[in-house]
Amino acid sequence: MTKIAILGFGIVGTGVAEVLTENAKKIALSAAEAIALKYILDIRDLSDSPFADKCVTDFSVIEQDPEVRVVVETIGGAGVAYDFTKRALLAGKSVVTSNKELVAMHGYELLAIAKAQNVNYLFEASVGGGIPIIRPISQCLAANEISEICGILNGTTNYMLTEMAAKGVPFAEALKDAQALGYAEADPTADIEGDDACRKICILGSLSFGRHIYPDEVPTEGITKVTPEDICYAKGINRKIKLLGRAIRTEDGKVAAYVAPHLVNTDSLLANVEGVHNGITVRGNAIGDVMFYGPGAGKLPTASAVVADVIDCVKHLKARKYIAWEQGGPAFSADPKTLVSQWYVRTSTDAFITESMSAIDLAPKLEEWNAECAFRLLD
Amino acid sequence: MTKIAILGFGIVGTGVAEVLTENAKKIALSAAEAIALKYILDIRDLSDSPFADKCVTDFSVIEQDPEVRVVVETIGGAGVAYDFTKRALLAGKSVVTSNKELVAMHGYELLAIAKAQNVNYLFEASVGGGIPIIRPISQCLAANEISEICGILNGTTNYMLTEMAAKGVPFAEALKDAQALGYAEADPTADIEGDDACRKICILGSLSFGRHIYPDEVPTEGITKVTPEDICYAKGINRKIKLLGRAIRTEDGKVAAYVAPHLVNTDSLLANVEGVHNGITVRGNAIGDVMFYGPGAGKLPTASAVVADVIDCVKHLKARKYIAWEQGGPAFSADPKTLVSQWYVRTSTDAFITESMSAIDLAPKLEEWNAECAFRLLD
Repeated sequence: MTKIAILGFGIVGTGVAEVLTENAKKIALSAAEAIALKYILDIRDLSDSPFADKCVTDFSVIEQDPEVRVVVETIGGAGVAYDFTKRALLAGKSVVTSNKELVAMHGYELLAIAKAQNVNYLFEASVGGGIPIIRPISQCLAANEISEICGILNGTTNYMLTEMAAKGVPFAEALKDAQALGYAEADPTADIEGDDACRKICILGSLSFGRHIYPDEVPTEGITKVTPEDICYAKGINRKIKLLGRAIRTEDGKVAAYVAPHLVNTDSLLANVEGVHNGITVRGNAIGDVMFYGPGAGKLPTASAVVADVIDCVKHLKARKYIAWEQGGPAFSADPKTLVSQWYVRTSTDAFITESMSAIDLAPKLEEWNAECAFRLLD
Repeated sequence: MTKIAILGFGIVGTGVAEVLTENAKKIALSAAEAIALKYILDIRDLSDSPFADKCVTDFSVIEQDPEVRVVVETIGGAGVAYDFTKRALLAGKSVVTSNKELVAMHGYELLAIAKAQNVNYLFEASVGGGIPIIRPISQCLAANEISEICGILNGTTNYMLTEMAAKGVPFAEALKDAQALGYAEADPTADIEGDDACRKICILGSLSFGRHIYPDEVPTEGITKVTPEDICYAKGINRKIKLLGRAIRTEDGKVAAYVAPHLVNTDSLLANVEGVHNGITVRGNAIGDVMFYGPGAGKLPTASAVVADVIDCVKHLKARKYIAWEQGGPAFSADPKTLVSQWYVRTSTDAFITESMSAIDLAPKLEEWNAECAFRLLD
């Protein structure tokens, strides 16, 4: 039997405890041994919780308990989560996380520590909620040179764009709906400004291309400028507006990554990813295009991915999983402004589609036209 | 460096050799060591091939060479492939295959031998060509109780149905087109009668539900009865006709599996899987629905999956992968005739949709109506 601890008992942490309990038999079969939850770390008073007997408030209890072999970090953010993750790895414990911010900012360092300690740092739940994507890229597509990742990576904004298209409502109203349904937080900035999608494309790009891509290298535009008129125009030319994160290998071997709204063809599979779902396409030189689709967030889907990683850690207590990437930096990142596409342009009086050109060539024209927004077309 | 052998140098075998050569650097990085092709077994004269120096015609050369740690079986069928696979496993070598017929018929036995020998028997390429599906089910969804698998598992028939819908051509013409393009073989029986899809749903069902599902337990209906009129009727009610393989866990813990044409909702993702592509949805109690999409066949996509398995074998020469299932049989299989759905029914003079009922309740009505065909609706 392997003992584990959960750090942070919020929505995902609670889901992990529930899945571990409810599917215990299946999980023990998959891991070839039982998995027992020994501690839950939270600063809140959890004495009313069914898991009250497992609660601790001092991380060092977990850190110093040699029985705990796997730590689940569902705290979020890059503050205390960063500290605890490092300490857990240095204490020889494997760590599983759903924390995209931490992996996007410190993945290279944390994976290097895990390697040095001969333990695992796994993060399937950090991208696409429960959709299998990290493991398929690192294992199933291991024989491929990957040339591009492109995905709908944020369920909140995809829900809002779907609502705007279905009901013709403006951005502010779609946001209010999303908040009322619990899809968007009270402060929705990370979603609507594209930061959440940015962190996810950083993780997917780092994994696919082997060098850490940092969020500040990724130009990021959210959906705040998208209007019902834009969506209506798109519909007229058989397209839908979707917020995409893309990471593309350029000819010189660098990677151009960015997040922005795109007008995608209605016949494409990505266009049919609606509501809070995510869809991620990967292009490899042997496989061609594959897509992974499913719920991009939510308590149980995310917990499903976390627990799959826990099972993998338990199966690999001796033999490490080979997930890692090299240090990145400016020498390895290309400017996505050089990427060529057609553009949808809106001015105060008009809307039209341009010829194919780079963002660099487009910029002076946008000034000339006094344009309000410009979104790329994607086929 | 790990040495491997390829058995059968047809389309997939050639693709494996090409991918191993072309992506050697990426593959060595993924496997953490170089992988070298030592032998190719084929009964044909391959002296003109660039790989001529590796060719052998006697399997025992490979069987008796302790340097060969992984054997790739791309012979196909359940004859000599069965014999060689058993002998390779018994000789302590891991085996990777794209052979769906062999896994569907003898998977339980071969996985048991692999386990006893502490080697791997992997078959990612046997379903969905290069689409990652076996590993995601066995690892990424390991925390889930799976309740249903449903997929477009045969690219040839999906291409034909797509052509029939797009051009209004009859079955025979669509088949001729598919043969001209190399999507269908001279003898297309295994595709159009559903046998290929049947083998694949057997493998997916066995893996998901933990008991071997044998092809003869799976009622299988192909697409030979589908007419342009059926497709036109479906279109009028916002549906498309797709050949689906389904495996469903019933309330008593058994599994009902079958292959048949269905009228699926146009808004569903499966409806948008067109041409030679495959799409597979998996429903789990934590994850909800996820879908995997991509090229379902083809030399390089299939080779991509084979080589990913080879890499996994090389990474697991000491620690086995935990892929296995128990013996199956009649005690574990449920009759899909008990499954309830609405039906599309065509008679010589009419076509209509029935109320929800089981196939058992439908049968006497079909006789009464003198019906020509009946396909389930799926939402």
